[in-house]
Amino acid sequence: MSQSEQQNRRILLASRPHGEPTADNFRLETTDIPQPATGQVLLRTVYLSLDPYMRGRMSDAPSYAPPVEIGQVMVGGTVSRVVTSQHPDFKPGDWVLGYDGWQDYALSDGNGLHNLGAQQTQPSRLLGVLGMPGFTAYMGLLDIGRPQPGETLVVAAASGAVGSVVGQVARLKGCRVVGVAGGAEKCRYVVEELGFDACVDHRAADFAEQLAAACPQGIDIYYENVGGAVFDAVMPLLNARARIPVCGIIAHYNATGLPDGPDRLPMLQGLILRKRIRMQGFIIFDDYGSEYGDFLQQMGEWVGQGKIKFREDMVDGLENAPQALIGLLQGKNFGKLVIRVADE
Amino acid sequence: MSQSEQQNRRILLASRPHGEPTADNFRLETTDIPQPATGQVLLRTVYLSLDPYMRGRMSDAPSYAPPVEIGQVMVGGTVSRVVTSQHPDFKPGDWVLGYDGWQDYALSDGNGLHNLGAQQTQPSRLLGVLGMPGFTAYMGLLDIGRPQPGETLVVAAASGAVGSVVGQVARLKGCRVVGVAGGAEKCRYVVEELGFDACVDHRAADFAEQLAAACPQGIDIYYENVGGAVFDAVMPLLNARARIPVCGIIAHYNATGLPDGPDRLPMLQGLILRKRIRMQGFIIFDDYGSEYGDFLQQMGEWVGQGKIKFREDMVDGLENAPQALIGLLQGKNFGKLVIRVADE
Repeated sequence: MSQSEQQNRRILLASRPHGEPTADNFRLETTDIPQPATGQVLLRTVYLSLDPYMRGRMSDAPSYAPPVEIGQVMVGGTVSRVVTSQHPDFKPGDWVLGYDGWQDYALSDGNGLHNLGAQQTQPSRLLGVLGMPGFTAYMGLLDIGRPQPGETLVVAAASGAVGSVVGQVARLKGCRVVGVAGGAEKCRYVVEELGFDACVDHRAADFAEQLAAACPQGIDIYYENVGGAVFDAVMPLLNARARIPVCGIIAHYNATGLPDGPDRLPMLQGLILRKRIRMQGFIIFDDYGSEYGDFLQQMGEWVGQGKIKFREDMVDGLENAPQALIGLLQGKNFGKLVIRVADE
Repeated sequence: MSQSEQQNRRILLASRPHGEPTADNFRLETTDIPQPATGQVLLRTVYLSLDPYMRGRMSDAPSYAPPVEIGQVMVGGTVSRVVTSQHPDFKPGDWVLGYDGWQDYALSDGNGLHNLGAQQTQPSRLLGVLGMPGFTAYMGLLDIGRPQPGETLVVAAASGAVGSVVGQVARLKGCRVVGVAGGAEKCRYVVEELGFDACVDHRAADFAEQLAAACPQGIDIYYENVGGAVFDAVMPLLNARARIPVCGIIAHYNATGLPDGPDRLPMLQGLILRKRIRMQGFIIFDDYGSEYGDFLQQMGEWVGQGKIKFREDMVDGLENAPQALIGLLQGKNFGKLVIRVADE
C-alpha cells in the first residue's frame, strides 16, 4: 500500500515497549485526509526522518520532551509538499521542513514550518547532514567539544547521521579523528570515504585494545552518542581537560533497568575530577536554535565543496518505518535513515 | 614537644592507608635543621594547611599529582618565616607562602615561594579564605557554575573552607543558597553567621526530603565537593541546564572499592543528557593559576568589608596533624583546618 490521494495513513504508538520495541508497539490506521481551515495548509509527507531519540518518546519515563501518548501519531521530522493552502505564506507545490510525524498528510498553521520554496535538490538532506543530525553534530562538537588542531577525537556510530559529520568537521579543524562503527564495511567507508584517520569495529573481541592503539596520544574529545561498551573503553584513554559533549546514549535506550554493579557512578565523578573533564549534555534546538541559519550556510558550503560527505539509508514506504526504527536501534542502518514516504 | 631552634621535626608517610588513614600511617622523625646554600632560604613553618586532597596523595592510585612516597615528608601548603637567607629576594623575618609540607624547617630556592613581606595580619588566611580553598571556591563557582540572580545553589561541607566561600559568593551574585553540613551547630552557623538561605543536616534521616523542601525551585548549581549521599539527593532536584563544578568527592576518598550495584553510571550519563547538565572537574592552580592575583584583590576587599566571613579551626602542634587530618576526612573540623606549628 502506498501513499494515495484518497486516504491518510498514520502510524500510531499502540503500546509502550519494554526493552526493544517490536512491531506490536505500532499500529497503522487509515483515515480521511483532513481539510485545511483558514490559516492552515495541507501537507503531503515525502520524507520522514527516523532518529534514535524516538525511542525515548515511546516511553513515559521523564525526559526533556513529553512522550507520545498511546494512540497518538508517532513524532518525527518531515520534508513535505504543500497540497492546498489557506495560509498566505505557502503555495501549493512548496517544499516545507516540519515535524509532522509518521503519516501521509498533516495540517499545519505554519508554526514551526520552514518554507523551502518550490525548487529543491535532494531535500531529504534537510533531515540529515543539513538538518537536525548535522546541526547536532556541528554545535556539540564546536561549542562543547572545542576541537584544537592536533587533538584526538573519538566518535561512535561513525557512519551514521551525527557521527559522520562530527568526524569530518573535526578533521577540517585539524584533529586526528578515530571512528567507532559496527562491522568491516562501515569501518572501511568511514576511513576511505569520509577520511577519518582510523575506525575501530566495536564488535571486535579486542575492541578496547584496538581503540587504545588507534589513540596513541589519548583522547581529547569524545563525542558521546552511544554510551555502553564504547564509553567504557574510552574512559581510561581520556586526557586531562578532555571534553565530552553528550548527544545520546543509544546503547541504553532499550534498557529495562540499570546494569549490575558495582556502582561506577563515583568512578565517573572521580574521573571527571582527576582528569578535569567537561561533560555536558545539550538539546540542539533548545540550546542552539538561533545558530541554525549560520550552520546551514556553513554546512551547505562544505557539502557543496565536497568537504563533508554524507550517506543516506533510504527505506521506501511509510509502512516500513516501524521495522526501520527497530533496526536503527540495533545499528542496522548504514547512513542517515530516511523513509521515502512517497515520490517527490 | 614543640618547635625548637635546634632540631627539625618532620612527619613522614610511614605506610599507605587502606580505607581511613590511621595514626600508624604517619611517622614523626627528628633531624638536624638544614643549612641554606647560596641561592637558598631556610624557612620556619608557622602555619600548615590540612586539606582533603591530602588523602589522595597518601595513595598510589592514579591521580592528577604524584603520590607522596613512603618515607617522604607529607605535602601541604604552609605559611612560614624566613630564618636565614642566601637568596636576594628574601630577608630574615619575611613571611612566605609556600608548599613545604609537614615539618618545622624547610629549604627553598625561592621557586613557587610567595614573599608576603615582614608585616602580616592573620597570615593563616592565606591558607584558607585568601588561599587555595577560597580560590578553589571562587573560580569553580564563577567560571564553571556561572551563577545568575535568582538561581538556586547547593553546596555541601558548607561550614568548611571551600563551601563557606562558595555559598557566600553565590549570595553576593544573587542566588538562593542552600548549604549542607553535619550537625545542628554547623547548620546554625551557616545560616546565622554566613547568611545562607538554608542549611540541611546530612545526618538527618529525612535528609533528601529536607533538601528538596529547601530547594522549591530545584537546583541550578551544585558545587560538588563531597559526592556520596549528598549527590544522590541532589540528582533528582537538578534543573535543566544545571552546572556542576567538581572540586572534590571527599565521601569517596577513604573508599577501598566501588559501592555495590546496580551500576548507576549510565543513569548519570542519561541525567547529563536529558537535563543538559554541565559537569566539569578542575584543578585550581593548573587551570586558573593566572587568575590568582585578581582573586586575591577581590576576595581581600570582600573580607575587609565583612561581606565574606570565614572561620578557622586552629589546632596547635605539628604532632597533632595526623589526627587532625583523620578527623577532617570524618567531617570533625569546623571551619578551615590549620595547624599552628609554632608561634608567629
